[in-house]
Amino acid sequence: MKYEDFVNKSYKPKRSDVICSFYLEPNRVSTKYAAGGVAAESSIGTWTELKTMHKYIEKIAATVFEIKGDKRQATIKIAYPIRLFDLGNMPNILSSIAGNVFGLKELKNLRLSDITLPKKLVKSFKGPRYGISGIRRILDIENRPIIGTIIKPKLGLRTAHHAKTAYNAWVGGCDIVKDDENLANQSFNRFSKRVNATLKMRDLAERKTRERKAYLPNITAETDDMIRWAKYVKEHGGRYAMVDVLTVGWSALQTLREHSFGLILHAHRAMHAAITKNPRHGISMKVFAKLLRIVGVDQLHVGTAVGKMNESREEVLENIHALTDKMYDIKKVMPVASGGLHPLIIPAVTKIFGKDVIIQMGGGVHGHPGGTRAGAMAVRQALHAIENKVSLKKYAVNHKELKAAIKKWG
Amino acid sequence: MKYEDFVNKSYKPKRSDVICSFYLEPNRVSTKYAAGGVAAESSIGTWTELKTMHKYIEKIAATVFEIKGDKRQATIKIAYPIRLFDLGNMPNILSSIAGNVFGLKELKNLRLSDITLPKKLVKSFKGPRYGISGIRRILDIENRPIIGTIIKPKLGLRTAHHAKTAYNAWVGGCDIVKDDENLANQSFNRFSKRVNATLKMRDLAERKTRERKAYLPNITAETDDMIRWAKYVKEHGGRYAMVDVLTVGWSALQTLREHSFGLILHAHRAMHAAITKNPRHGISMKVFAKLLRIVGVDQLHVGTAVGKMNESREEVLENIHALTDKMYDIKKVMPVASGGLHPLIIPAVTKIFGKDVIIQMGGGVHGHPGGTRAGAMAVRQALHAIENKVSLKKYAVNHKELKAAIKKWG
Repeated sequence: MKYEDFVNKSYKPKRSDVICSFYLEPNRVSTKYAAGGVAAESSIGTWTELKTMHKYIEKIAATVFEIKGDKRQATIKIAYPIRLFDLGNMPNILSSIAGNVFGLKELKNLRLSDITLPKKLVKSFKGPRYGISGIRRILDIENRPIIGTIIKPKLGLRTAHHAKTAYNAWVGGCDIVKDDENLANQSFNRFSKRVNATLKMRDLAERKTRERKAYLPNITAETDDMIRWAKYVKEHGGRYAMVDVLTVGWSALQTLREHSFGLILHAHRAMHAAITKNPRHGISMKVFAKLLRIVGVDQLHVGTAVGKMNESREEVLENIHALTDKMYDIKKVMPVASGGLHPLIIPAVTKIFGKDVIIQMGGGVHGHPGGTRAGAMAVRQALHAIENKVSLKKYAVNHKELKAAIKKWG
Repeated sequence: MKYEDFVNKSYKPKRSDVICSFYLEPNRVSTKYAAGGVAAESSIGTWTELKTMHKYIEKIAATVFEIKGDKRQATIKIAYPIRLFDLGNMPNILSSIAGNVFGLKELKNLRLSDITLPKKLVKSFKGPRYGISGIRRILDIENRPIIGTIIKPKLGLRTAHHAKTAYNAWVGGCDIVKDDENLANQSFNRFSKRVNATLKMRDLAERKTRERKAYLPNITAETDDMIRWAKYVKEHGGRYAMVDVLTVGWSALQTLREHSFGLILHAHRAMHAAITKNPRHGISMKVFAKLLRIVGVDQLHVGTAVGKMNESREEVLENIHALTDKMYDIKKVMPVASGGLHPLIIPAVTKIFGKDVIIQMGGGVHGHPGGTRAGAMAVRQALHAIENKVSLKKYAVNHKELKAAIKKWG
């Protein structure tokens, strides 16, 4: 079979097919040839005719069934028979649909923009254990955005300072406190001591505030270490673990979902923008969001559209939909807004996200002129203002922490 | 500390620092501000001044010590104190130096182009068990390129056809036979049956040819499955396993290096071009090559410069250097040339790679008009021609398999 043989515009995808949408730019070949190359290289074809081809194999060829565009750029859709894939093996799925194809010289650029998996393939993974409803139940927060902070400075704080900062954030009004994505088991702040110290502060904060509080220690590491750390968190009374899903990778993430000791899994997406940022090449965050939901994280960073990161409102909305739209009976994943946020931006964030969101602020809490506790208070005040349909400015008249935040960031 | 505070052109890097080179394009900010942002966000800084900063923390700030370029584009170098990192934790290193930074809105594009790790950090990983010298010893091939093939069609062959094709390749002259990167444990060709059947054929081929032969089964999967499969391969007499390093991810790869049962580890880089292809954004293959060497794969795909993939000769040479240049006492990794090769291209490949290379051909063997065995014979004939300093065309006069290959691909 030649590359062009993998194009058939009259093919009608089956319900059991995997469907992928790509954007592509051919490189000195026809669009049809380039599109066929993508389907061939991720199924049964290669650049030359094979003497080892058998008739029975052709039945599982991938098929380009839609091409829209011209000779310079196009969007295409490909259907892959489910038999091409190893059930319950996410690295295998990615090695097929998102493997060699990006490097083909027939393509200047190629972007995997969307994916739909059939039920049988989705159900071969665990999916989220808790998702939005489970998180709300455990945190006992029914009907408002969840407020979180990241301990800052992101690296370097000694354990006692780390735990104390977490305490200040909780008593000021944060529901959850997380480690930063690159804090692990460095010499200045060892994992086990940090977990002990910070969970003790959590207990104190719960007693003081009579609210449920959560600590999200970062267990990003080699698989065995990661599982050992998750166990440690559980044994010391933790309810959550956070993990950098793309730098640990898909195999370890599946393993963690198998051995998560009942912890809620918070997914940080460090490194994603190396792959997702260029709109003409790579893989969209929406695709990662869907696959992470299928593997089974409970909450995921999806951008803010209004902070220090560069994603557009449309992209963020697509990511939210990937986490919360109906997908068979797979639970909804809680979207996390994080990156350059502060109290004044909360109205804009809730407008985009609605109520089902974790609003996370690092600098926007610990950079408050009155310090961490005042910063967390300002955040909750901003939330109260929105709940009461009052402008932040007006609400700030009687709330000095919000007033100080407006003065610094307004 | 503000972003600009992370720039200090008079800083002299320490031998214990991690050094990274980036290419960047500022987005509506000065180059200095953008460069400082990269150092800040991967060490101790953020977008706003923090009330939780302590003097003792500033000692571990990353520092931009070189900026070359103008306000539209620049190359920069950053030094990171080793204390920022968790020893022996590759996901943690990547979450720091290659994490959030790609998504900063102050940057249109950002590319991590090179990295140097200090000895202590490198030595916290295992490195290759065998490398070039170990592979040559085990395969008993002293002084020539190693010839390999990938079983094609890449997916769909039944187990018996798979094993028979492998046999034909070995007796024709291939030293190693590997699975394709997206073959795992699909229903048409189960992993355990395939390993059994193919290793039996390997034994037959060894007896027939009196050469050492190797089979590289693809163990890409969730971590526990992958380790179980590696064990299975070892128990059934295998010497090798192959793994898709980027789709399984860094945690699982470290775990595999810990539990590899003495197998040689072959690294396929499926998905790399989603990150490495754009010269202005993402991460260079050279960086991945260095990090994979440090974690400890024995052989790695690095492109061909002359086949179906798009990397330039310069990039391929950089990748080879990353695998083979002196790096403390870490073993050299065997470069693998693969992707669209056939016998006629072998002279060009050996010119680039020298002798220390695995030349892998899928279509270039199984696409031969005489079939797999003739295809493998043509490859060995091409190699003999080069060893004897005779042109392929002249050598083909008395070697009909090479002649047929020239007729098809010449």
